[in-house]
Amino acid sequence: MQDFTNTICALSTPYGNGAIALIRVSGSNAISITDSVVEFPIKSKKLISQKTYTSHYGRIKYKNEYLDEVLVNVFKAPHSYTGEDTLEISCHGSVYIQQKILEILIEKGARMANPGEFTLRAFMNGKLDLSQAEGVADLIASTTESSHRLAYQQMRGGFSKEINKLRYELLNFTTLIELELDFSEENVEFADRKKLLKLIDQIYKLFDSLIKSFEYGNAIKNGIPVAIIGRTNSGKSTLLNRLLHDDKAIVSAIAGTTRDFIEDTMILKGIQYRFIDTAGIRHTKNQIEAEGVQRTFKKFNEAAIVIVLIDINEELLEVNKSFEFLRNNDPTGKYIILALNKIDQLKESIIQAKLLEYKSFWSKYAYIIGISAKDGINIEKLEDLLVSNTINKISTENEIVVTNVRHFEALKRSSLALQRVREGLMNSLTTDMLAMDIREVLHYLGEITGEITTDEILGNIFKNFCIGK
Amino acid sequence: MQDFTNTICALSTPYGNGAIALIRVSGSNAISITDSVVEFPIKSKKLISQKTYTSHYGRIKYKNEYLDEVLVNVFKAPHSYTGEDTLEISCHGSVYIQQKILEILIEKGARMANPGEFTLRAFMNGKLDLSQAEGVADLIASTTESSHRLAYQQMRGGFSKEINKLRYELLNFTTLIELELDFSEENVEFADRKKLLKLIDQIYKLFDSLIKSFEYGNAIKNGIPVAIIGRTNSGKSTLLNRLLHDDKAIVSAIAGTTRDFIEDTMILKGIQYRFIDTAGIRHTKNQIEAEGVQRTFKKFNEAAIVIVLIDINEELLEVNKSFEFLRNNDPTGKYIILALNKIDQLKESIIQAKLLEYKSFWSKYAYIIGISAKDGINIEKLEDLLVSNTINKISTENEIVVTNVRHFEALKRSSLALQRVREGLMNSLTTDMLAMDIREVLHYLGEITGEITTDEILGNIFKNFCIGK
Repeated sequence: MQDFTNTICALSTPYGNGAIALIRVSGSNAISITDSVVEFPIKSKKLISQKTYTSHYGRIKYKNEYLDEVLVNVFKAPHSYTGEDTLEISCHGSVYIQQKILEILIEKGARMANPGEFTLRAFMNGKLDLSQAEGVADLIASTTESSHRLAYQQMRGGFSKEINKLRYELLNFTTLIELELDFSEENVEFADRKKLLKLIDQIYKLFDSLIKSFEYGNAIKNGIPVAIIGRTNSGKSTLLNRLLHDDKAIVSAIAGTTRDFIEDTMILKGIQYRFIDTAGIRHTKNQIEAEGVQRTFKKFNEAAIVIVLIDINEELLEVNKSFEFLRNNDPTGKYIILALNKIDQLKESIIQAKLLEYKSFWSKYAYIIGISAKDGINIEKLEDLLVSNTINKISTENEIVVTNVRHFEALKRSSLALQRVREGLMNSLTTDMLAMDIREVLHYLGEITGEITTDEILGNIFKNFCIGK
Repeated sequence: MQDFTNTICALSTPYGNGAIALIRVSGSNAISITDSVVEFPIKSKKLISQKTYTSHYGRIKYKNEYLDEVLVNVFKAPHSYTGEDTLEISCHGSVYIQQKILEILIEKGARMANPGEFTLRAFMNGKLDLSQAEGVADLIASTTESSHRLAYQQMRGGFSKEINKLRYELLNFTTLIELELDFSEENVEFADRKKLLKLIDQIYKLFDSLIKSFEYGNAIKNGIPVAIIGRTNSGKSTLLNRLLHDDKAIVSAIAGTTRDFIEDTMILKGIQYRFIDTAGIRHTKNQIEAEGVQRTFKKFNEAAIVIVLIDINEELLEVNKSFEFLRNNDPTGKYIILALNKIDQLKESIIQAKLLEYKSFWSKYAYIIGISAKDGINIEKLEDLLVSNTINKISTENEIVVTNVRHFEALKRSSLALQRVREGLMNSLTTDMLAMDIREVLHYLGEITGEITTDEILGNIFKNFCIGK
């Protein structure tokens, strides 16, 4: 376990030269340490006697020399981010000054903060729960409107409130059930089994929707995976370039989260789309290359949105052969857009006929559209399809969406334990077994908000924070 | 001329994700604009009615959605950096949030600040003079203890004070001389010519020392140029590596200020040394390659410190031939260290004899030392020589050092004009000519502190500032 009795300090603004840099000091000696370092215009002035939430102009003095002019913000415990006495020193943003001030603070008794330690202390002091702390890290990392919104909601405690409500209801029942154990010889039932079953069903349904929301939440957080699949020469790279260089799209190159290569991503209406690299399906004389199909199928499974790109000049039956696997596959949870490319090469009447032809084969689960990647025809319409499909998945703005793998895993484990409780209730399982399973659910839920925690869980969460937060 | 009636805003911390980012808003509408953007826990609370130098927790609200939790610092005119109403909004350090807050502020009526515009406004409002403003930029850019100290002194007004003192004394005399012009028909002398001459001499001497200090000041600011010159195989790159990788030295790679390649620099005791790339002097059978000499001579001229590296095994007369140009050159202002390398290969008695031998030829202006770059013998002693030579040039800590090319040029022009005043006084030049020359000196001095300024001067100075300062 880390030592929280020390006073910690860190640079809280990004590293590098800038107009201003901000150094945070927090802990029981934060004020006295800073007082020993800053000299004010009225020399007898001390931070210790200043009001909380005030700003003070002074100079950092070290070994009879002035280092910089600074502004010091005073936040007294418990009304600070960490819940401890906290000072924010804003200095001129040279790396030299930043490092020197940290050096002096350390010499005067502070120590460098570990990554996320300010937030960890806030958690320890009950300023926020664990899921909220994770929301803080997500908020800083979020790059789009939609991922920002989910992170902000989580930081503000939206998810925690939901979990705590479930936990509270289950806890009530557990108390009654465990009371029965105390009176086990008398064979009483304090907890109404029917009511419990109803509650369990209710909670199970909610778990299910939370677990399902993760696919969407994770996609929002890391970008919605889109696969463009098609036979070779259907115009895949032309379409990708067209989408990435459309005026409406903000293109960024992010390091793939699980792999080492750079993925193409674009932001449309505040939502990030991540293009999964797919090779074309090669085919030689009616013979579909098995390996290519398998590869494409894998990409298909990774994607939330699949754009099947087809050269409108090709034979429908030929094309269908290539995508047999797709048409036979269960598309649950996937959004499939059939894009007939190269419509610039055909007359409108022929295009309409082709579209109708494809509709009769694919309409079951695909949206069909004619485009020209080369000439940019209907590209905007294609983008609107991507966006409206994504936005439709958020039924209301206030619905809770799970974005965190740790929460997802805890919910899945809770759900399994809950299933056992349910079965136990149906099969009149003994009270002590029942209590054990419910306790397990409570445990997993407690892990999410941090009511129950271990050094390992904390370590894993906070090691990914930036220093200074 | 820029428009200073607008309210400006900018990100003041370095660009990128971090724990905290700080956005500055300054101008007559800064408070009302920020009030329209931030919502406080007590909804009726407004920044306009808050005391100066206080911090306030609130939330950025935009289109009925909360964007972030922020702290807002209020600084009311004239007691702020710019002299205007200024607010500092510290938000969570995601690039998305930073950009969004700036977007909202701009929508509410602020505009993006130009580089250095906060400091420019501070200058316009008399919070600091031009030389101090330049000190702010230098302070942010400074990377070493010594360059930081000079910039801090300049920002605090040390240099301005000196210039203003001179200006004030000259101004007094000009007033008297110009009074004479009003009474020119009566042929009176209000200004004592002997006293004036004495003053001019005094000022001229001071100008001279300031102008001379620039070489040092510039070296401190951009790194002290050191050339290691030597014949091929004398061990130049071994010595360079040894110096750069010594535990005492902090090595950094900075982009050359005038050229495009990366220069090797190291920091010793807070002073930056910049190694000028030199090729070895090649020699074939008593024949010194002319081009190599010329090249080396050029590097010699660029350097403040020259380390002449000699293989102790070579013949003294041979070596001397290679460095004839050096021994015949006026070494004024340069510090030359003769380093006899490879002493690990010889016995102590022979080394001592060799050292004596070299001393008799070079002692006039060179410090002679025996080293082994390979084995690291006397490297520390060599470093001490570099440092002590540099530190010796600063006679007192409080002496004014010119670090800015613009100031240097203004001082040189002042000095020339002053010389004309001096000559005019000696040759009893007419009062009006005298007054004109003194006015010229006053003009140049006024340009340094910004009493006299043009859009062009301001433009040149502030375009090099970072945005947000």
